[in-house]
Amino acid sequence: MFDTVCIVGVGLIGGSFGLAVRDKRLARRVIGVARREATIAEAVALGAIDEGTTDLLAAARQSDLIFMSPPVGQMAELCRRIAGVVPEGAIVTDAGSTKSSFVRECEQVLGERAHFVGGHPMAGSEQTGVGAARADLFEHAMWILTPSPQTPPLVLSTLTAMVEAVGATPLLLEAGAHDAILASTSHLPHISASALVHQFVRVREGAELADRLIAGGWRDSTRVASGSAEMWRDICLANSSAIEESLAELIGDLEQVRGWVRAGEGDKLREWFEAAAQVRRAQGYLPRK
Amino acid sequence: MFDTVCIVGVGLIGGSFGLAVRDKRLARRVIGVARREATIAEAVALGAIDEGTTDLLAAARQSDLIFMSPPVGQMAELCRRIAGVVPEGAIVTDAGSTKSSFVRECEQVLGERAHFVGGHPMAGSEQTGVGAARADLFEHAMWILTPSPQTPPLVLSTLTAMVEAVGATPLLLEAGAHDAILASTSHLPHISASALVHQFVRVREGAELADRLIAGGWRDSTRVASGSAEMWRDICLANSSAIEESLAELIGDLEQVRGWVRAGEGDKLREWFEAAAQVRRAQGYLPRK
Repeated sequence: MFDTVCIVGVGLIGGSFGLAVRDKRLARRVIGVARREATIAEAVALGAIDEGTTDLLAAARQSDLIFMSPPVGQMAELCRRIAGVVPEGAIVTDAGSTKSSFVRECEQVLGERAHFVGGHPMAGSEQTGVGAARADLFEHAMWILTPSPQTPPLVLSTLTAMVEAVGATPLLLEAGAHDAILASTSHLPHISASALVHQFVRVREGAELADRLIAGGWRDSTRVASGSAEMWRDICLANSSAIEESLAELIGDLEQVRGWVRAGEGDKLREWFEAAAQVRRAQGYLPRK
Repeated sequence: MFDTVCIVGVGLIGGSFGLAVRDKRLARRVIGVARREATIAEAVALGAIDEGTTDLLAAARQSDLIFMSPPVGQMAELCRRIAGVVPEGAIVTDAGSTKSSFVRECEQVLGERAHFVGGHPMAGSEQTGVGAARADLFEHAMWILTPSPQTPPLVLSTLTAMVEAVGATPLLLEAGAHDAILASTSHLPHISASALVHQFVRVREGAELADRLIAGGWRDSTRVASGSAEMWRDICLANSSAIEESLAELIGDLEQVRGWVRAGEGDKLREWFEAAAQVRRAQGYLPRK
């Protein structure tokens, strides 16, 4: 499918992509780009890449597919850096959890010479680093692509074939729609999980045995709060307007519940819990991967 | 350990307690009390009780242990009803998720004749009903008991032995401390899970494919929202002051994050996420039962 794939950022996602590309033989070779030599050595040892370098431009100039998985805040800058060296017709895509803040700019800086198509494989875990990478990480996952009207059909069909080859389901979406939906289905749950932890910490200060009274609900509801603080900072900054809007809605709902609790409005509370329960039950309890 | 155990409310918790008592041979017989004959028939068929009745007083007057697992809003009234008929020296306990609103009253209405000790086995699932009951539901769970200064030592040691016999760990706690901690570790996560679902429903109204973009984080963070609306209404009403206070704190945290997102305060966000991540990681990822 490709001659040389370059993976920029060899962590959980980049490393898993490398493992999948090599496992499915989608490229002749896979070059990893990382800042630290130790990461490269680990990724080579784990079989996630064939070879690695700390030199972004040296890798980019040899590659017909460049898969970028850096912190989202660095995407536009990295695209500007490789724009002058990527081979004619190369495809550049990414794995960022947000899209609007950089997709348009990346498309523009690469111009006609190469093709940027935003991407977001919806896979991951609370673990980070190439050590947690798995060749099957993307199996049964949705993989969003955000092509623009200028994206050549052949580029898009190559990317959808690649997504399917690693076991995921491609879904085409406008970048802004992606960000609004993900604010609700991913970013807001992360913020509320972290807020629950902070509230718990205050309670525990007054009662050390609170640790022993953690219920399964708390454990599930806060699981994602273990994730990388840097990544979530970047997501909040990159998707600030959608996150702010969804946060305002969540706060409004919680204020409403607070009013009902204070006023003893049992019927309102029951209806509200029931409406949520029906929606949630319809989503099933599939175990996480 | 007991001659006759009476279980009032044969659902997930009451049914599991019946299964465990029979499995461990802690009583000569187990009588279940339910409103519906069909529930009694199902509980007998599943082996959760030896026999059942819809007549609370008939069952209570024969029992030396009365285990109450009705909606928490009914606890005080049910204790008043059985107070005149329970055998001298009988032990009455419960499995309610909140304690302060009824424990003192139950202690008083039973007077010197019988002994009420509040209890809360921290076990359960998003499933409800005796059909989901399991003899091992309480294994490795914490089981809080809220004795008063008047609780006779022999009554308390009998209950702690019972808790240990069904595989749980007894933990003695004052009723108000229980409610404050559980507001944080159980009730607040449930409310925030339901609020996340309501926020998602609004986003989905504008984008039907939002269902396909549900991330693992959303799934985990909202799992408990599937629970019984009636039970959670009752918990909110019974523990209203602790829940209102913890909700106010959670809202305050979310408002703070909203301000940081709006102002692009990356350092503040990173520190806040990191502090939560460290606390959450320390709690581990033990799979739920």
